[in-house]
Amino acid sequence: MAKKKRQMILNLFLNNIGHHEAAWRHPAAEIDQLNDFSYYRKIAVKAEEAKFDSIFFADRLAVSKEAVQYSAASRLEPLTLLSAISVVTEKIGLIATVSTSFNEPYNLARKFSSIDHLSKGRAGWNIITSGTDEEARNFNYDKIPDHALRYRRSKEFLEVALKLWDSWEEEALIKDKAAGIYADPDKVHRADHKGEFYQVRGPLNVSRSPQGRPVLVQAGSSKDGKKFSAEFAEAVFTAQQTLEEAQIFYEDVKQRAEGFGRNRNEIKILPGICPVIGNTEEEAKEKEYRLHHLANPDHSLSQLSSRIGFDLSGYPLDGPLPELSETGHIRGHQSRTKLIKDLAQRENLTIRQLLHRLAGGRGHYTISGTAEQIANLLEEWFENGAADGFNIMPQLMGEGLDDFIEKVLPILRQKGLFRENYTGDTLREHYGLGYPASQFSTKDNRRSSIEKVHTSDQIG
Amino acid sequence: MAKKKRQMILNLFLNNIGHHEAAWRHPAAEIDQLNDFSYYRKIAVKAEEAKFDSIFFADRLAVSKEAVQYSAASRLEPLTLLSAISVVTEKIGLIATVSTSFNEPYNLARKFSSIDHLSKGRAGWNIITSGTDEEARNFNYDKIPDHALRYRRSKEFLEVALKLWDSWEEEALIKDKAAGIYADPDKVHRADHKGEFYQVRGPLNVSRSPQGRPVLVQAGSSKDGKKFSAEFAEAVFTAQQTLEEAQIFYEDVKQRAEGFGRNRNEIKILPGICPVIGNTEEEAKEKEYRLHHLANPDHSLSQLSSRIGFDLSGYPLDGPLPELSETGHIRGHQSRTKLIKDLAQRENLTIRQLLHRLAGGRGHYTISGTAEQIANLLEEWFENGAADGFNIMPQLMGEGLDDFIEKVLPILRQKGLFRENYTGDTLREHYGLGYPASQFSTKDNRRSSIEKVHTSDQIG
Repeated sequence: MAKKKRQMILNLFLNNIGHHEAAWRHPAAEIDQLNDFSYYRKIAVKAEEAKFDSIFFADRLAVSKEAVQYSAASRLEPLTLLSAISVVTEKIGLIATVSTSFNEPYNLARKFSSIDHLSKGRAGWNIITSGTDEEARNFNYDKIPDHALRYRRSKEFLEVALKLWDSWEEEALIKDKAAGIYADPDKVHRADHKGEFYQVRGPLNVSRSPQGRPVLVQAGSSKDGKKFSAEFAEAVFTAQQTLEEAQIFYEDVKQRAEGFGRNRNEIKILPGICPVIGNTEEEAKEKEYRLHHLANPDHSLSQLSSRIGFDLSGYPLDGPLPELSETGHIRGHQSRTKLIKDLAQRENLTIRQLLHRLAGGRGHYTISGTAEQIANLLEEWFENGAADGFNIMPQLMGEGLDDFIEKVLPILRQKGLFRENYTGDTLREHYGLGYPASQFSTKDNRRSSIEKVHTSDQIG
Repeated sequence: MAKKKRQMILNLFLNNIGHHEAAWRHPAAEIDQLNDFSYYRKIAVKAEEAKFDSIFFADRLAVSKEAVQYSAASRLEPLTLLSAISVVTEKIGLIATVSTSFNEPYNLARKFSSIDHLSKGRAGWNIITSGTDEEARNFNYDKIPDHALRYRRSKEFLEVALKLWDSWEEEALIKDKAAGIYADPDKVHRADHKGEFYQVRGPLNVSRSPQGRPVLVQAGSSKDGKKFSAEFAEAVFTAQQTLEEAQIFYEDVKQRAEGFGRNRNEIKILPGICPVIGNTEEEAKEKEYRLHHLANPDHSLSQLSSRIGFDLSGYPLDGPLPELSETGHIRGHQSRTKLIKDLAQRENLTIRQLLHRLAGGRGHYTISGTAEQIANLLEEWFENGAADGFNIMPQLMGEGLDDFIEKVLPILRQKGLFRENYTGDTLREHYGLGYPASQFSTKDNRRSSIEKVHTSDQIG
């Protein structure tokens, strides 16, 4: 049999009305449906019909009065949404962001295990530590704990969750009605975790889920973030502004993963791409300009200030970005702040120009062009060591997703880069990831799970 | 128009394979489907077709190795299940137990608001404090905090949640695309809560949900529990062993509610009823006996020990229940422990007989009989100041629910005590509860919401 071409992973990042900060003001924006499940069902079903690997919800655990005034700021809780979507879809993977700073590992492990059961093996968890004071103030803090502390806690949180997911071995269930034995107690294990932040006995009160555990995703690209990814993540969402930077990031994370004794194919790198698609490049640029024109510059500036942890309100919009100090106030999103500074410097942008560059995807790669241009870009990154696939972030959700599905996907399929049909049933199978054996298992399942990676449809 | 007869509330308590502890061993038990959504979908849809007011999931945040061995102990997480069920049903109310001891109010308020949005106004929260060391050990404690402390925390937790649900006023959403104004910031409020246990700024990041907030349910029948119910609960789940005790409880809670300035119709009392239905009383008794016969006495004894906080393992099964000390070790389920002691004493039961009496519903009222006998019992309690409706707890879920729907409901309908069709769309409407105005609202919605109670279909 001919060796199948390596296939691109495509994740739909489902952000509200669209990733452009002014998308909600667009005439086509379905703003009345933001709290209505029919909106999410429609998009999820559409993405599944188009054979996307997964859909993804980000999250943030706070909102300001300014944000509710100037943006479509009501957001349904992601795990609630995933649970609902799980029963109206059959194949597509379901990924949600949940913070390790403001949850209990037992509760979270249970919820993801439940969603993995409900969806028959399609759950994924984007692990974040939460980076803002605004969020911390909803959870008994005055300020967000510092970066290193959050990552230390996050690592322990994940260790506890892994013990809990593994607490029921693969063959623990017996279900012998006659003998009255439901599970083999020798194959159900306590976590007995006692660490710096958590003390959790276990076992989990849900039996092992179809994927063993959710696919572990990570999106921090700071030094701590990359280290965490390299050790634990099976997929990495990342914002990259140039092919070269993306290549460096890709190779860095893969090598770090190898440093932890992992196979480089066990960790998938997915840069974000925020497309606006037109029949001509001019049409696309005009569409994008119309979105920029709908943005409120004062609110954009205030959002940027919050993102980089530096108050820009006194600075002229048509002047340059001021010097940002390297340390101290930047406790939040370290890598994103660096990306924004580098972008402004490299392209010599005024603050106003920078706001436009960030409006479509908050630092993710934006591109307005024809379907061919976008497909070629994805191919270039994919074929040149910058990506295993992409986080697709339509700037305007309805129209932008339709354009991507109808115009870009056929080209990717023609190039042999994206599936015609699902070949697997679980998110792990879509992404080409192995099945993780329980750490308490007496059987040596680990080897066979890695072999499975190499025969999956994702790897050439 | 003729005054409509007061209608009974019927809530289906959906417990795993059934409420009898040995239900999972019954030949008809769908034990393979316990982690499969199709099982829950089927029951929820059936309950909705039968016009139940609501379905309800209890919860417990731990499992022992003994429980996984001898009982069908894998349990999907309730909020995850409610979210999934919300999109495959249209009318039935959706209630889940969540503990105030091991969650953050911001997260929980957000999840219930999201489920209320997804379900278009059908969410209910059964507020519990969690009562066992086994649970505490999954959440960084060695022992469960004492009863009074848990209730103090619970009260503050609820106060925070209420502030968050109320943080978006009824008319906060503007959604003016042209002006770029999504919400009126003067109608979106911070919680600014600083208390003994929580410090939460708010506002919530989801706009006000259809019911304003979930229906608040409480199930503790201790002194602290009743006080909490009287002040906050809109429905009370309770275990009562005799009509007389149920009447005393009913009147006590209603009077306490009036003591908080509430209308007695704003709090609905729903005792649990665990039926086994036969064409004759003998057939029903035989069905029930067959379930008892499937139970494992050692495991039953160990569960009882855990429930009452007293190790019974040394005591002969055919001897009496020993004297239990009143204080100290009973930190958990105070009122249930008292109920069990009273039951054993009143009926002069041996430990084995007590285990049988508890096997079908853990202290809730069990009845094996004909449909007529059961309908008459419900009518008697409902018409004589003991109940506003019932928590229906089939001892064997599939067959028991079918029997109840096909045999008992028609009799209740004939008596004019239970609806033929839904007359409302939300859980509040089904239960005959008013719409709660935001505490931050400048409009006086409170009066009109109470008036609404009196014109609903629940109140004569």
